[in-house]
Order: sequence, then structure tokens, then C-alpha cells
Amino acid sequence: MTTISRSPTPDSTTALPRVEQRSAIPLGFRAGGSAAGIKASGRPDLAVVTTTNGPAAAAAVFTPNTFAAAPVRLSKAHLAATSGDSRAGFGWAEAIVSTSGSANAATGLAGDADQAEIASMLSVVTGVAIERTLHLSTGIIGTRLPLGLVQAGLAKLVPTLAASDDGLLAAAEALRTTDSVTKVASTTIGLPDADGRPVTVTICGIAKGVGMIHPMMATMLSIVLTDAAVAPETLWSLLRPAAARTWDQLSIDGDTSTNDTVFALASGGSGATTAETGSETAQRLGAAIEAIARDLARQQAADGEGATTLITAAVTGARDDAEARAVARIVVSSSLVKAAAHGRDPNWGRVAGAAGNARLASAAVLEAAGLPAAEAKVRAGTPAVLDPAKLRISISGHLVFDGAQGGPLEFDRPAASEAMNAPEVVFGLDLGLGSGRGEAFGCDLTETYVIENSEYTT
Amino acid sequence: MTTISRSPTPDSTTALPRVEQRSAIPLGFRAGGSAAGIKASGRPDLAVVTTTNGPAAAAAVFTPNTFAAAPVRLSKAHLAATSGDSRAGFGWAEAIVSTSGSANAATGLAGDADQAEIASMLSVVTGVAIERTLHLSTGIIGTRLPLGLVQAGLAKLVPTLAASDDGLLAAAEALRTTDSVTKVASTTIGLPDADGRPVTVTICGIAKGVGMIHPMMATMLSIVLTDAAVAPETLWSLLRPAAARTWDQLSIDGDTSTNDTVFALASGGSGATTAETGSETAQRLGAAIEAIARDLARQQAADGEGATTLITAAVTGARDDAEARAVARIVVSSSLVKAAAHGRDPNWGRVAGAAGNARLASAAVLEAAGLPAAEAKVRAGTPAVLDPAKLRISISGHLVFDGAQGGPLEFDRPAASEAMNAPEVVFGLDLGLGSGRGEAFGCDLTETYVIENSEYTT
Repeated sequence: MTTISRSPTPDSTTALPRVEQRSAIPLGFRAGGSAAGIKASGRPDLAVVTTTNGPAAAAAVFTPNTFAAAPVRLSKAHLAATSGDSRAGFGWAEAIVSTSGSANAATGLAGDADQAEIASMLSVVTGVAIERTLHLSTGIIGTRLPLGLVQAGLAKLVPTLAASDDGLLAAAEALRTTDSVTKVASTTIGLPDADGRPVTVTICGIAKGVGMIHPMMATMLSIVLTDAAVAPETLWSLLRPAAARTWDQLSIDGDTSTNDTVFALASGGSGATTAETGSETAQRLGAAIEAIARDLARQQAADGEGATTLITAAVTGARDDAEARAVARIVVSSSLVKAAAHGRDPNWGRVAGAAGNARLASAAVLEAAGLPAAEAKVRAGTPAVLDPAKLRISISGHLVFDGAQGGPLEFDRPAASEAMNAPEVVFGLDLGLGSGRGEAFGCDLTETYVIENSEYTT
Repeated sequence: MTTISRSPTPDSTTALPRVEQRSAIPLGFRAGGSAAGIKASGRPDLAVVTTTNGPAAAAAVFTPNTFAAAPVRLSKAHLAATSGDSRAGFGWAEAIVSTSGSANAATGLAGDADQAEIASMLSVVTGVAIERTLHLSTGIIGTRLPLGLVQAGLAKLVPTLAASDDGLLAAAEALRTTDSVTKVASTTIGLPDADGRPVTVTICGIAKGVGMIHPMMATMLSIVLTDAAVAPETLWSLLRPAAARTWDQLSIDGDTSTNDTVFALASGGSGATTAETGSETAQRLGAAIEAIARDLARQQAADGEGATTLITAAVTGARDDAEARAVARIVVSSSLVKAAAHGRDPNWGRVAGAAGNARLASAAVLEAAGLPAAEAKVRAGTPAVLDPAKLRISISGHLVFDGAQGGPLEFDRPAASEAMNAPEVVFGLDLGLGSGRGEAFGCDLTETYVIENSEYTT
């Protein structure tokens, strides 16, 4: 039997490079953000990222919501156009625009026309071909974007874009809606250049949370930039499993948004050689992308609407990783577990109850995570295997349930409650069945979440 | 295109007899409830129902939770033993016992031994064979049942069981945990006796809510009694689709309990002839069972923890009923829709966003609802088909979105908000694609839910 980690901050389930929560713009990009007036509050609401030397390899994952917003549909069309691949997961891009304050979702044909108009405006002001623009938007569903404000904002913002860390930080700030903090993560790795000498490759991601978060094969708005050299389809093959292990394991309130999008852009500006599919270089680049994705997902969970603590479910001993992730995800998604975390109540019964409902992800997510297509199809939605007699549960380091010892354990309840009074509450579940590992991230359910969402129109 | 009902209380999607929310014990049963001291509060916590003339046909649906509680496992074993059918959905029974205050879930082998001990106690005091006892329990997960109190309680309660409406009402009261009201529903239908003359058949159900409610092929605790004559397997064939259209469409907080159980018992005491599978008599009995199930599910939703209003999603125009139910269920399950209902905010964007995430139920639920097994397997978990350009959404009678007219409509927001300030908020969705109909029941998400569940250990 594997042991339950007593560490309050669990390790990732895969070996990942260390991440810093600071902006570090990779070579080959410019970025910036500003207040265009879309938000009545006057806070930043317009972000633009452009490349400095022509098209970057681009990969994306999008929301599966049937009401996918206009920016999602347009971005897919542009990726498909530039790659010729109908899956719309990768292609070439030179500019990303993000508007915040209006989601441009469920706005019908008029919303599509608005987004096309924004692509055209962006093309005019940047000189980038329309089909090489990518689009993000977040905010209230069903309201139209104020095109005049966006046009004026772009005209003012684009000339100020900077190939600097501050420029990218300004873009991250402009992604925010109800986020209380700006979310950014960066890392560097050494990858070989054409002569085999190591060069520094930077990977930096920015993201927003913080409500309507329960990604399925997608995530909230996020942009991951790197100066690594990699073909679009290879980049996609790295982004999909990383998202499946990180953002797809994030739940704040169980609602999958209409606008979820992650873009990864690789400029090649570092001078490193192209990371070929299946190579060790690609593997290392993938791990770095996953490290960024994981850190941003944790930042998003910690900043969930109304949240006072990050909740992590760390599952070991599953039959395989897919089952471990299913168990982890349902634990952090449970309203009752989330409310117990809020009350700092070491209520393992709710954790066990939630775990007992675990069902494997959809075929698309399972396949993205690496399962063969046929197996993904058969196993999608089936129950994860748990044996109550083998399960062990720990809460923030306190072992509270051990199936092999009859189940419930005597434990120091006040000490466990005290341990939960921290910025991160960790539910450890060791299923005792195999070597599968997985994790998921969420947050506590608070009165503030209810108040914010019953008074705020999203 | 079908029209959206403007009625504040929508009709059921199938033709059902009228129901009264009062106790009406069918012939052939005795019932009662008492305070045995399991609950520290001293409120009623022990319920018993027995038959007066030997075994009744019994059918059941149970939680699919892997941590199914000891009473669930024991009841399944008893049904399988008395029917010889390994599916454990039907059999014969003479007594039901329900304990409230401790769920006897996640209590390991000791919990199984406790429940077996209760079966034995019940057998001693009622004279019923152990395998003809059925078991319910609800309350805190992971605590052991106080057997001494249960034994003393049974000895006192069983001699007082009465073949009276009050006796059944007392049983309903003893099912409660955090329920604010007692939940009971009854109806009568005329079914033919052996000579073809109509005799009155009574169907009466009792149930408890009100947290950890998101049934999958099962429901909360409920007992449905009838004096109709029907074989166990036929009764099961009536109960399963009724549950799929009612309790399986109920969500209070997205958490599927470890103890969900519905028992239906038919005594035959009315003198009506046996309702044969597929007969018109069986159809009418099935509709009456469904009417009771629907009414109880609505009562459970309205009394959801912390709730101030019932939420009903009424979906028409889907490609088929299964897709309509999927859309209805995800709308009432959405935290953001629930919070908007709490704020009386006619926030159709959240309704559309939730609808866009609809996925069909599990194969087991689809099959229970009447789909052929092969079709159920293929369609389980697949997205429900929606076309934003054909969708129409109304909120408590106000049409707010019409895809054919470009989407968002101008509407009288204060009037819509005022219409939502009612004991029931109705979200009407007409998908404009076919004749499929479905409904689902939930409640608003309130600060009180959070406070109750962060301070109360379940």
C-alpha cells in the first residue's frame, strides 16, 4: 500500500519543473492591457498579445459547452484555417485579443458578427492577417460587446505593447473579472540548440478565474507563451494531456463556462531546436507547460468566488490515473465537502460519500489524458473502482479513516480542524488498489459565494 | 414549435392522477414512528411499517454510490433472497424499519453486523422472517447505530403500530433529519376487481429530503405503499421509470447520498385484481406511483436545505424525452442558476450556459426510463442536442430569449424578478427540435445552506 502524504502541499502526480508566480515574457512576444471602458468599473478589460517575428505555433483547448461563445467559435475557425486541420486544436497565430466584461456568449449571429468585426479591427491596427488572430472574452452572458469602445481601445493599446514582463502582467490584469488577484506563472528550462548546446527556454502563462469553473476538456481563459520551437500539432499534443491533468481537474462551482479557452503559443525565439513529437525535448517542454497549467489551476481554485481556502484532493493507490483523477475531481466538486472545508470540519464521511460517486471523465478527456481511443470510449462515465475496506482517508495530514482497520478511526478532531485552518486543505485518499495517482483543485463554499452570485449578474 | 407554458406551476410531462399532500394508509399496512433516542434532539427517529396479511410485493431503487450504506446492502440481499433474482430490485417484504440520526454508512463490517442485528430485533418483535425485512437509515455518515436504543425503541413502538393515516404520518415524521416539513402524498384510483367492478386503490408515499440530494437511479428515503395487487417484478417495472422521471430529476446540492432508497410495497388489500405487466391496470397503477413520486420529489426540492423557493425546469421541444430530462436536470443543478434564483435575478444567460453542458444520464437510468438497453449504452453521457438559434427560454412566464429572433429579448426585468419572488420559480426551455419533454426539480442556493452545512456534521 502506498503511503498518504502528510505534507500540507502535495506534490504533483507527475515530475514537473519548479514554477514562479511572476511574469516572464518569452522571446518573440509583445503584450499589454488597458481599460477600454467595457467594464463600468473602469478596471482593465482589454488585453492584446502579438508576436514579434511572424506566426507562432498555436494550440488550444476549448469549452465543450453547446453555447460556446462567439470568440470560441471564431478562434476555432481561424485555427482550422491556418492548419487545414478540422479538429481546430492547432494552427498558426500572430495576435490574441481578450475582452473582459461581456462574454459575447448566447448573442446569436449578431455576436458572431461583432467578434468578426473585432478580428478585423485587430488586423487593421496590428497588420496581422485576420485568420491569424485568436479571441478570448469573459463576463456577462448575453450582452453585446461595445464595438466602438473596443476599437478605440485597440487603437490606443496596440502601439504600447511591450516585449516586457510588465507588458504581459498588464495583459494578465486585463483578463480579470471577479478575480481578486492576477494569475501568472512562469518557468524556464534548458533545451538544446542546433549545436546541442543548452539555451534557456521560457514558459509563462496568465489566466483568469474565478466562477463558472468546472472545465471539461478545456479551462478558463488562459494564455501560455513560450519561446520554444515546436510545430503546432506537437504543441497541441503537449497541451492536451497537460490540461487533462490540471485544468480539467479544477472545479469551483460545477458550472462549465461558455467561454473556456486555453491558448498556447510558441514563438521559437529562444533559439532552441524544434521539439519533435515524442522526443525528450518535447517531453520536457510538455512538463514545463503542465507545471504552468497546474500552478495557474491552483491559483484559480484558491481565488474561487468567495473562497477562503484552496482544497486539494490527492488520490493515490487507484487502479490507474484516470480513476484517481475521477475520485479527486468529485471530492473537490462536492458541495458538502466544500461546505465542511469552510467550517474547518474534518468531515471524512462527506469525502467518502463523494468518492463513492466517482465516474470516469468523458471519452474526449480520457483520450486527451493519454488513454487509447477505444478504451476511452468504453470507460467514459463508468464508476471508478473503490473498495471501502481498502480505502484510507487523511485530512490535512490527519489519518481519519482506514478501511483495513474497520473504517472510522479515533483522531484528534480539534487538531485536525486546526490543521484545516490554512490556505490549503488537503484531502488524501489512498484507494489501496494499484499505483494510479491523480489530484484535483477546488475551494470552499462560503456565504460570500452565494451573496456574490445572487447579487451579481454574470 | 411547441409553446412555452406560462403557468407558474407546470404540468407533469406525463398524464398523472391528482395528488393530495396528506397521509392515507392503504389497506394491508400498519405504521408508526417514535423517538428512540438516536437523535440527541429527542425528535422522532424510528419508523416501522408492517403488513397485516403476510408478504407484500416489494420493489426498490437504490443509490449507486460505491459506499452504499449497510441498510442498502442488507435490503438488497433480502430482496434477492425472497425473489431469487440477483438484480435485487424486487421481492417480498413484511416489515420496513427506518432509523434517523445515523446513516450507518462507511461503518465497515461492524456496520453490517449492526444492521443484521436490527433485522434480528425487528424479526423478534414483529414475528416477520429476517429476510422479509427491509431497511432504511439516514443521518451522519460514519457513526455507529446505538443498538440498545433501537432495541428498546422497537419493543415500545411495534405494539403501537396502527392501520391508520396517523400511524403512517408518524412514520413520515420519524424519517426526517434536517427536513423542515413532513413529506407525504397520496392518491386513489379505481381498478377492477375479479368481477370487473371498480374498487378503490390507494397509493401513499412518505419521504425525507433534504441535503446530499442528487439521485442517480435512486432517490432519498421514500416508502410508497399501495393496496393494489401486483407481482414484485411488475411493481419494479412500474417503479423504475417513475423514479427515472421524478426522483432522478431532483437535485438539491449535487451530492448523491450513500443511503438513497425507495421502497414500494403492494399489499393487494384493496381487492383489485392483479395488475399484470403491460396491462392497462398496470399502466394506471404506474401513473399513480409516478404521481406520488413526482409530488414527493417536488416537496423534497422545495424543502432543500436553506431553500426559499422550489426551482422547476420544464423542457419541451427536445429530440426526445431523455434529452429533455438531461437539459432540465443540469439547469436545476447549476450553482449559478440556483444563486440567481435566490437573488430573483432573471439571469437567462446562466440558464443557457447550464443547458449547453447537458449530458444524457447513465445507461442504467436511461434504461430505467424506457430506452432499449443497447441504445441506452450508446447514448449514456453524450451531449444533449441544442441549437442556440432555435432555443426559447422563459422565466416564470416571461419570455427572455428567442434564438429565432436573434437571441436575447427585451423584457420587463423588474416584472420578471417580481414573478420569481414566489414559492416556485419555473425555467421553461423550448428547444424547438422535436416533441421530447422533461422536467427537473431543485431549489435556490442560499447563505443558509452554506451555514447549515459548514456548521453541521452529516
